[in-house]
Amino acid sequence: MTALNGQMMHMPLLISSLVRHAARHAGQTEIVSKRVEGDIHRTTWSGIERRSRQVAQALARLGCAEGDRVATLAWNGYRHLEIYYGSSGSGLVLHTINPRLFPEQIAWIANDAADSVLCFDLSFLPLVEKLAPALQTVRHLVLMTDRAHMPAASPLENLLCYDELVEAENGDYAWPVLDENAASSICYTSGTTGHPKGAIYSHRSTVLHAFGSAIPDAMACSGRDVILPVVPMFHVNAWGLPYSGALVGAKLVLPGPHLDGKSLFELFEQERVTFSAGVPTVWLGLLTYMKANDLKFSSFKRTVIGGSACPPAMMKTLQDDYGVEVIHAWGMTEMSPLGTLSRLTSRQDALPKDEQQHLLEKQGRVIYGVDMAIIDDEGRSLPWDGKSAGNLVVRGAWVIGSYFNRPESPLVSVDGEPGWFPTGDVATIDADGFMQITDRSKDVIKSGGEWISSIDLENIAMAHPAVHEAAVISAKHPKWDERPLLVVVAKPGAAVSREELLGFFEGKIAKWQIPDDVAFVAEIPHTATGKIQKLKLREQFKDYRL
Amino acid sequence: MTALNGQMMHMPLLISSLVRHAARHAGQTEIVSKRVEGDIHRTTWSGIERRSRQVAQALARLGCAEGDRVATLAWNGYRHLEIYYGSSGSGLVLHTINPRLFPEQIAWIANDAADSVLCFDLSFLPLVEKLAPALQTVRHLVLMTDRAHMPAASPLENLLCYDELVEAENGDYAWPVLDENAASSICYTSGTTGHPKGAIYSHRSTVLHAFGSAIPDAMACSGRDVILPVVPMFHVNAWGLPYSGALVGAKLVLPGPHLDGKSLFELFEQERVTFSAGVPTVWLGLLTYMKANDLKFSSFKRTVIGGSACPPAMMKTLQDDYGVEVIHAWGMTEMSPLGTLSRLTSRQDALPKDEQQHLLEKQGRVIYGVDMAIIDDEGRSLPWDGKSAGNLVVRGAWVIGSYFNRPESPLVSVDGEPGWFPTGDVATIDADGFMQITDRSKDVIKSGGEWISSIDLENIAMAHPAVHEAAVISAKHPKWDERPLLVVVAKPGAAVSREELLGFFEGKIAKWQIPDDVAFVAEIPHTATGKIQKLKLREQFKDYRL
Repeated sequence: MTALNGQMMHMPLLISSLVRHAARHAGQTEIVSKRVEGDIHRTTWSGIERRSRQVAQALARLGCAEGDRVATLAWNGYRHLEIYYGSSGSGLVLHTINPRLFPEQIAWIANDAADSVLCFDLSFLPLVEKLAPALQTVRHLVLMTDRAHMPAASPLENLLCYDELVEAENGDYAWPVLDENAASSICYTSGTTGHPKGAIYSHRSTVLHAFGSAIPDAMACSGRDVILPVVPMFHVNAWGLPYSGALVGAKLVLPGPHLDGKSLFELFEQERVTFSAGVPTVWLGLLTYMKANDLKFSSFKRTVIGGSACPPAMMKTLQDDYGVEVIHAWGMTEMSPLGTLSRLTSRQDALPKDEQQHLLEKQGRVIYGVDMAIIDDEGRSLPWDGKSAGNLVVRGAWVIGSYFNRPESPLVSVDGEPGWFPTGDVATIDADGFMQITDRSKDVIKSGGEWISSIDLENIAMAHPAVHEAAVISAKHPKWDERPLLVVVAKPGAAVSREELLGFFEGKIAKWQIPDDVAFVAEIPHTATGKIQKLKLREQFKDYRL
Repeated sequence: MTALNGQMMHMPLLISSLVRHAARHAGQTEIVSKRVEGDIHRTTWSGIERRSRQVAQALARLGCAEGDRVATLAWNGYRHLEIYYGSSGSGLVLHTINPRLFPEQIAWIANDAADSVLCFDLSFLPLVEKLAPALQTVRHLVLMTDRAHMPAASPLENLLCYDELVEAENGDYAWPVLDENAASSICYTSGTTGHPKGAIYSHRSTVLHAFGSAIPDAMACSGRDVILPVVPMFHVNAWGLPYSGALVGAKLVLPGPHLDGKSLFELFEQERVTFSAGVPTVWLGLLTYMKANDLKFSSFKRTVIGGSACPPAMMKTLQDDYGVEVIHAWGMTEMSPLGTLSRLTSRQDALPKDEQQHLLEKQGRVIYGVDMAIIDDEGRSLPWDGKSAGNLVVRGAWVIGSYFNRPESPLVSVDGEPGWFPTGDVATIDADGFMQITDRSKDVIKSGGEWISSIDLENIAMAHPAVHEAAVISAKHPKWDERPLLVVVAKPGAAVSREELLGFFEGKIAKWQIPDDVAFVAEIPHTATGKIQKLKLREQFKDYRL
């Protein structure tokens, strides 16, 4: 007989359904924002949904049609949230731009995305005034404030006032039934080489990501939570929290521009925040402030830390001294962004505490919806033994298949099966599925078929008392093809020899992994965001021979 | 400009992806079964997936083709789980039949579904021997056991041995990429009137339901959990736990046929069960056994109770005396089945304990994916004030649009908007979205435009010391159209008057809701499953006039 269909209702997975759900079933739950204007603003999911409908009407009145891109340069706040839902919900494509990029990059990105409208916070008025002449497609500039805060004079022509635009609409608007595979938002990755590339998400991928990120093995979001996303709404859509927060009807606390320890701590306490998420550096500032003032949290229970690896000492301090559960997470823009989170399973219940802690420091297990593998340079999958390191590849419901405006496919094959996205990371996976990043693919040292992690070697070198900064790069080797070269900036006044440094590695790592040589330099080059520029370093040592 | 699509990978929501995920990322996690044969059997998610592939091969070898129905009459066990995944995963449609139905009903259901294969546990051999001649479409009978336990002689021709069929296959099978809207399983409701009706789920609805049921506001399933579904796998697919368990890679403990207090308690303790789900009566047996033997749980943390309302006293005992969190849930076969669960939100954090408890005793809030409304008999929506009672209607991603083999649509409109499924329940909803069932639609008494809950009146009457059983039905009334009639079976030896009983209601309920009359009877009719047959009772009193 022929195939048979299920007889279920058709409910497309749309971003509008998230905010409708929150407004209908958690309508009185608060959305609290620390405004750029300086004060605290309070609304509810019901208020957000009503104003989002007005935003949809206002954008249509500005001439936006299905598929048009609406850009933002904005902090975490209720107006930004309204634009999230008002744009995507009405069939437009939200494009959150990272204001920390160089102005030329911002203009390049806005032009590549062909943004129609740019909405921005007061903080970014000087930036936009500078940018405006370079924006080739933007037809409307909307300042996200009220009439009272509009500038008396601005070189920008036809600068629109967000609150006025929104309040001119009556909200009598029904969310359209869109194709769930339609584009909903676009985020650009800031690659270290070449132009940024756009990841263009769909309604379906966003809703499935919201489901995946809400489950207990991921962020464990619930209606009982008060969520403060420290991660910016311009950084991979605040890791999806504006969506998962609506899915569960959580109270949201949006911190605006001030992310210093004092501002954050006061918001955490005033609003009884239970859950937060951000990169490691944010927690550093918060903990420093709390320690200096001998403060404790009264409601804060758990946090997701991602973006870069969380130092074990920070995990320990948060857990042991402040009673905050740390959930180590890994993902990337191309993954919406959540891939793995480090959460124990029933199989690890009986392990000693330090072995559990060791697992929690890894990047963790994938959520259902994502699959991963590690492969060698020929695309053969490697064993999940916790030791074999390989190129980490992923696939799944919220992983990109291709980049916006780029015809070439980024995907690779695993054991001949196509359709995997190469993350650019090198990782191990153990038998229980715990993944650990050991390096970036381009930084790993490939010595006679064996891979050596540059990060492992750097961590050891940095522990030497005479070392101020260390970087390990590959140097050409006649027999082994590549061997590790340790590049070191010594501490001022410290004297240390090549032999002493190389001897320092003994017993800490396998003999064949110890660097072959040390190069002492006065300075190691860094990117604008403080990362070591290994590309530049490799360039500098390209003629070096072991 | 024209609409723009997202550029995400295409990953259809298929049931095979659940078991593949569990096998790949929680492959060593155990599936423990108490077998019909009497012993404990241990396998893993990896083992389940491998055998499911063999089941898929075996079913294909038996001639099953995409869309064919594979029926089961089986307890909770690993073979049943293998058939779940082996059938649906390969494009066949799993049809779990409730063995507690009358044999004629089972035959009717199997014929209506046009089942091709029937797999059954040893316990049901006598039943199937009796049924077989009435099965019009079943081509193969498969006994779910090994060769050693096959009967020496059976009137059944060509009785097949499950383990032999499975073990004859090599497992070299790739799960097909199906349309996610294809049928995956079918469950029949046992209506009180007319023939049972089939709800036919899709892969998509099943996977979305698994996501929805795993989030913290629902069942909060994780890889840390050891889940023992007491709810049978023939009862709305064990409320989806075989799917959500795979989605999170939880350890499953499948209890087989023995659900008495002693058997369950021993399994809970031996396997360190953390989470369970079932109807109230199961917990009654378990608690009675534990109390009699002065036992406590060592790992059991929370349970979902649904199927019928959980008595507040049982909730209290489980929570206060045994430290088990009780999650009150409501749903129905037509909803896959989960609709609402009673979980507090941040808005209720500061409420006094007894007010929180009162909320937890309600049926609760919907999960994202489901929407609900209450309407009057004209389809107008009623306010969410916690007082107005109306017909409860639902819609959503895992709600049926129509019944199998039934051309007529069951759906109704709300304020003129079509597409809502009428649940047959009467409920109130409060401003925070907490729903409470107050009656069945057909049992509510409609008195002069006001609705009176028959359940409320019965609960009051049952509290009178002389009352053995009470049922309230509507009786025709010249002025008010309907008025409540209290039908009572007095306790043996007890004497109670009409006046005393009616007086007993005073102060307990609004005066206009007090029944108009009392009818004393020797017996109240019941269904096979012990429910009061109000239909028969109404028939019995159809000429009664107030």
